[in-house]
Amino acid sequence: MPKSKVDTHTGEFEQPCPIRDVLDRIGDQWSLLVLEALATGTMRFNELMREIGDISKQMLSRTLKHLERDGFILRTVYAEVPPRVEYELTDLGHSFLGPMKNLVVWADGHHQAIREARRVYSDGNGKAMGER
Amino acid sequence: MPKSKVDTHTGEFEQPCPIRDVLDRIGDQWSLLVLEALATGTMRFNELMREIGDISKQMLSRTLKHLERDGFILRTVYAEVPPRVEYELTDLGHSFLGPMKNLVVWADGHHQAIREARRVYSDGNGKAMGER
Repeated sequence: MPKSKVDTHTGEFEQPCPIRDVLDRIGDQWSLLVLEALATGTMRFNELMREIGDISKQMLSRTLKHLERDGFILRTVYAEVPPRVEYELTDLGHSFLGPMKNLVVWADGHHQAIREARRVYSDGNGKAMGER
Repeated sequence: MPKSKVDTHTGEFEQPCPIRDVLDRIGDQWSLLVLEALATGTMRFNELMREIGDISKQMLSRTLKHLERDGFILRTVYAEVPPRVEYELTDLGHSFLGPMKNLVVWADGHHQAIREARRVYSDGNGKAMGER
């Protein structure tokens, strides 16, 4: 567990919020899918579009920009005509693949349990309300 | 990596979105802090308030409700006067501690790199704009 719980808080605290930085970054599944795609190697924008499948140009562009800003990926522009732009994971991005994979594997293995819990909970609440 | 990338998408797809369920759940640091607190054992509402420190009653109440709904924690009411209410991790909640810890440890070890990347990025963008 973290060294200090205060570090993970937001608000009045002056300390950095490590978990917040990460949640901000992986809080959308597009970031995870881009990182997963780049885990296989350097890719161009259109290759990423094809690999991810149903992402819009605008969303991919925004996701890449955020991942670049936060240091997870490197964007390299080659002075060709037309200019060639390539994306690759940085060391930071590579280092995140492990924890990310753990999370994805856990989610894959347990999302049915979460859905079942939600069903039981809403049934239980409905029943409880009926009993009033 | 996941069995199917389509599973992690939102939108038109009929398939479940496992990673979405998890991101929805851990997308706020309060959930992580509650799960972390309950990792040490069963607790009452006021104990959790004290343990977490700067969380409001309303926010703790909401977080507990969501975690209960999604099957991460169990809420038990004892018929005493006043009623005693206790919270504990379910098996699902316990199983999440591993991947959660990996994420928190990674965040603890790398948030400075993320902050530094953001600083460099914004400096670079400022410079690029100044050069125009």
